[in-house]
Amino acid sequence: MALKVYLSGEIHTDWREQIMNGAAGLDVTFDAPVTDHAASDDCGVAILGAEPDKFWHDRKGAQVNAIRTRRGIEGADVVVVRFGEKYKQWNAAFDAGYAAASGKAIITLHPEEHDHALKEVDAAALAMARTPAQVVQILTYVLNGTLPG
Amino acid sequence: MALKVYLSGEIHTDWREQIMNGAAGLDVTFDAPVTDHAASDDCGVAILGAEPDKFWHDRKGAQVNAIRTRRGIEGADVVVVRFGEKYKQWNAAFDAGYAAASGKAIITLHPEEHDHALKEVDAAALAMARTPAQVVQILTYVLNGTLPG
Amino acid sequence: MALKVYLSGEIHTDWREQIMNGAAGLDVTFDAPVTDHAASDDCGVAILGAEPDKFWHDRKGAQVNAIRTRRGIEGADVVVVRFGEKYKQWNAAFDAGYAAASGKAIITLHPEEHDHALKEVDAAALAMARTPAQVVQILTYVLNGTLPG
Amino acid sequence: MALKVYLSGEIHTDWREQIMNGAAGLDVTFDAPVTDHAASDDCGVAILGAEPDKFWHDRKGAQVNAIRTRRGIEGADVVVVRFGEKYKQWNAAFDAGYAAASGKAIITLHPEEHDHALKEVDAAALAMARTPAQVVQILTYVLNGTLPG
Amino acid sequence: MALKVYLSGEIHTDWREQIMNGAAGLDVTFDAPVTDHAASDDCGVAILGAEPDKFWHDRKGAQVNAIRTRRGIEGADVVVVRFGEKYKQWNAAFDAGYAAASGKAIITLHPEEHDHALKEVDAAALAMARTPAQVVQILTYVLNGTLPG
Amino acid sequence: MALKVYLSGEIHTDWREQIMNGAAGLDVTFDAPVTDHAASDDCGVAILGAEPDKFWHDRKGAQVNAIRTRRGIEGADVVVVRFGEKYKQWNAAFDAGYAAASGKAIITLHPEEHDHALKEVDAAALAMARTPAQVVQILTYVLNGTLPG
Amino acid sequence: MALKVYLSGEIHTDWREQIMNGAAGLDVTFDAPVTDHAASDDCGVAILGAEPDKFWHDRKGAQVNAIRTRRGIEGADVVVVRFGEKYKQWNAAFDAGYAAASGKAIITLHPEEHDHALKEVDAAALAMARTPAQVVQILTYVLNGTLPG
Amino acid sequence: MALKVYLSGEIHTDWREQIMNGAAGLDVTFDAPVTDHAASDDCGVAILGAEPDKFWHDRKGAQVNAIRTRRGIEGADVVVVRFGEKYKQWNAAFDAGYAAASGKAIITLHPEEHDHALKEVDAAALAMARTPAQVVQILTYVLNGTLPG
Repeated sequence: MALKVYLSGEIHTDWREQIMNGAAGLDVTFDAPVTDHAASDDCGVAILGAEPDKFWHDRKGAQVNAIRTRRGIEGADVVVVRFGEKYKQWNAAFDAGYAAASGKAIITLHPEEHDHALKEVDAAALAMARTPAQVVQILTYVLNGTLPG
Repeated sequence: MALKVYLSGEIHTDWREQIMNGAAGLDVTFDAPVTDHAASDDCGVAILGAEPDKFWHDRKGAQVNAIRTRRGIEGADVVVVRFGEKYKQWNAAFDAGYAAASGKAIITLHPEEHDHALKEVDAAALAMARTPAQVVQILTYVLNGTLPG
Repeated sequence: MALKVYLSGEIHTDWREQIMNGAAGLDVTFDAPVTDHAASDDCGVAILGAEPDKFWHDRKGAQVNAIRTRRGIEGADVVVVRFGEKYKQWNAAFDAGYAAASGKAIITLHPEEHDHALKEVDAAALAMARTPAQVVQILTYVLNGTLPG
Repeated sequence: MALKVYLSGEIHTDWREQIMNGAAGLDVTFDAPVTDHAASDDCGVAILGAEPDKFWHDRKGAQVNAIRTRRGIEGADVVVVRFGEKYKQWNAAFDAGYAAASGKAIITLHPEEHDHALKEVDAAALAMARTPAQVVQILTYVLNGTLPG
Repeated sequence: MALKVYLSGEIHTDWREQIMNGAAGLDVTFDAPVTDHAASDDCGVAILGAEPDKFWHDRKGAQVNAIRTRRGIEGADVVVVRFGEKYKQWNAAFDAGYAAASGKAIITLHPEEHDHALKEVDAAALAMARTPAQVVQILTYVLNGTLPG
Repeated sequence: MALKVYLSGEIHTDWREQIMNGAAGLDVTFDAPVTDHAASDDCGVAILGAEPDKFWHDRKGAQVNAIRTRRGIEGADVVVVRFGEKYKQWNAAFDAGYAAASGKAIITLHPEEHDHALKEVDAAALAMARTPAQVVQILTYVLNGTLPG
Repeated sequence: MALKVYLSGEIHTDWREQIMNGAAGLDVTFDAPVTDHAASDDCGVAILGAEPDKFWHDRKGAQVNAIRTRRGIEGADVVVVRFGEKYKQWNAAFDAGYAAASGKAIITLHPEEHDHALKEVDAAALAMARTPAQVVQILTYVLNGTLPG
Repeated sequence: MALKVYLSGEIHTDWREQIMNGAAGLDVTFDAPVTDHAASDDCGVAILGAEPDKFWHDRKGAQVNAIRTRRGIEGADVVVVRFGEKYKQWNAAFDAGYAAASGKAIITLHPEEHDHALKEVDAAALAMARTPAQVVQILTYVLNGTLPG
């Protein structure tokens, strides 16, 4: 059966595409949140009606997105969580905690500058990668037993 | 049986004391992470031996702390997660995700400026409070059915 | 260890008091939702701030109440669910479903006129009682093995 | 893998057909209770023998139906629960509670007049929709990330 | 997805064949224990070596059979448990208890003479049938919503 | 914490008293079904009203008894299941299966003549004893590490 | 559905090939750890960067391997654990414990000389085999009900 | 509530006493297997009757011991697993795997010479200690937040 990988976190760079392209020949299926930032922010009110209060505007959207993300994480064998250079990205850390309590294999992906702030998250992961290519190499090894080079 | 409350997150202000003092007359027991920042950062190497690489220094400490925090969250009825003004606080969001997947009642506690960045976390919570006093009022109501004022 | 009983449902008559008084000599602890109707309806906004929209007013309150009711049901050995003569009482049926999926022993308590409408709920229960006295008799038998009369 | 959606609740209007038709192009599979009212009421006695007492007549039927409905809910990713204008519909609220305790994503579907009576059920849902078209739009967004209009 | 049905219990009559033949047109898959009595009794020693003590002879066989039966029950949606006229059939009752604690839908199948002795088992079942044809009718109704006649 | 032991099965001899007396000095708490045969058979109708049909008479009683027995098994560390010389005792085998699927430590207690018929049940147990005294010796060893003689 | 078998333990002889070849005609799928010893030892540092300290070198590799092995065990119906003549093989015993707590059917495979040292592991298994051919015979019987010879 | 610690593994040195004495002032309760080697080996036959075959002699004992060890691990917050210099100690590694799959916090305790052979076990642990004193220091920190020195 294909290895199911959920790609959580930062949505402003093409790291998901790099991983999916790199893993093109592997028996893997990928899932991810909606990465269209505007759609993700507004999905709740766009479908279910406008809210004058930004708090409930956000709540409606976050809950609709949760239908997708909870299923994605719960159905995954491996959850990759990417932390980028900017923003609070609390939803990424939330996903990591959710994945940890659900017993998922976690791979974190982040630059060295975040190492100290992410030490609790990394401690719950089975691998900490710096590049999407390393994630592809892990998936390749996990499935085929082959190492790079 | 006493209501078990775990107080997760920001460790630089006295919000935990405010809640514990405010709840003094209630049938509640509180648990929390070690809030001595230096001890929390260095517990791993202080006990288990120095590490030249900061990454493993942090890993050792994060894992020793996890013995306490995982037990605290898993044994709790209610997990309060406080996000302060500063720092990334990814461990707080991680705890929230862990609590959510473990089916715990979550109360978030944070200023309005973080509302948008915390929308996924708030959407997994049963209450979003602005002040420690509100958390005390919730605990009072949950236990005794009485409202403030 | 004391038998833990959660008393869910209708809040307009004294059926809870009848059961608690009747069970005075038994090794039972009782829990229940907040039965002060006004407090229950307004707890969310009274503590966490007013909402102009009744829908969110209700949401805030329902979620604060859920902190108590979920814990009550999850901690119970037996969940008694009372359906009265009036109102929709969907929260009572919701509690029954929640209790059923959580593997709790369920006792329903309702007049004959609701038998057909409650057939799915009754089918998930281990006993259907007509009177609080019968519930007391069941608890007495379950704990002590003695029958009435 | 296809998104599995269970359509619970009211059986007197064509809301299920509207959703299934609207979702025709999506990777979704639908399940639902038996919606033939007479068959649903009488399935127990029709197969397993008549009962002179209506209570046991109903019990037999409710339990045979439970073989289908429990499996439907437990196998679903998303449970849509529709409350119509009439009847007690306690089985719909029971299904919602069962789905909530089973960790399913819940979408409620009901007119505004029921908002207050359904506040506990809505508080356990990730979306509250007014029309079948909105449910289709949610499923479309969850699967494809696209919004209406 | 096909309904998965496990056929547990009595192995001396052709009730399994009657059910499988009757359900020929339905989307059902069937599983069952090994029904070759001699093979079932001797599988342990035939594969893993003779035992002079009948107790361990039986133990070896029972454990090898458990590889099949546990998987069959745990993978099933519906467990049919048949009690025949003769023998103790404690393994059938054991399977029923195992299925009950695993949350499976149970259909019992037995003659009226066993009603009193099986009252605890029947109380954990969603249907009690007298004939294999009734089991087929239940499966037909559960899958297609159609009743006999 | 005291070792919790549930004593399931045969109710016609004093084996429970033998075990409880023998374990008088140990840190053990015992639970058991109601062993008054008449009360156990009639508890349903005595409390909840007569049934003309013996099948439903039995059902009502079996379900009321299940409130006690399910709690007893689920709360136990060790479940002792006694099979006597007479009767079908399917409820004992059902309890054993329920305990097995719930991950409980099982001790069976039965004469040699039942060994073959109980081989599946014994294969799920951690000990098969012939006498109540042996059960006491096991409990003594498990708690204190001391052996008889 | 194919029986899923995970082959854990010793990686220095061809026992896996013997089982897979012997089971060629059966409806079985096999999974196993990476059995290339050098790759298995070095996968962590080969992908994620060198470590001067052998302890962390090993940690990185063990955690990457755990992505594969945890999934393999958790997805299996049957876990075969082979103990060879040499080495500590603590990872094999660890896998057996992990499989036991996960409720998997376990078959151990080891020479007689290890019987005493493996008594706790064997006590958690449903079969103890001496040869790969016996494992094939068990799988054949479990799937087809046929015995050798 | 006291921290519950299970002390698994090597039974030939006084490491358990060192930890228990060192933790004398802490809110900890300790559990452990029976550490009387002869009693542990012979408990099965001493209570339940002799076995001519050493394999079944060992099986009886291992299963009686499992009543104690499974409960000890499942009831623990922290499982300390000690590997000594000698013997295979597969039961210690089995306990570690069992604890890991049960979500327990694991502390391993072993000399450096075993690091490579225990890399999979250490990778599932939250701390690897060299001395009983370090284990005491971890427990002290986890409970009180204080570090040594």
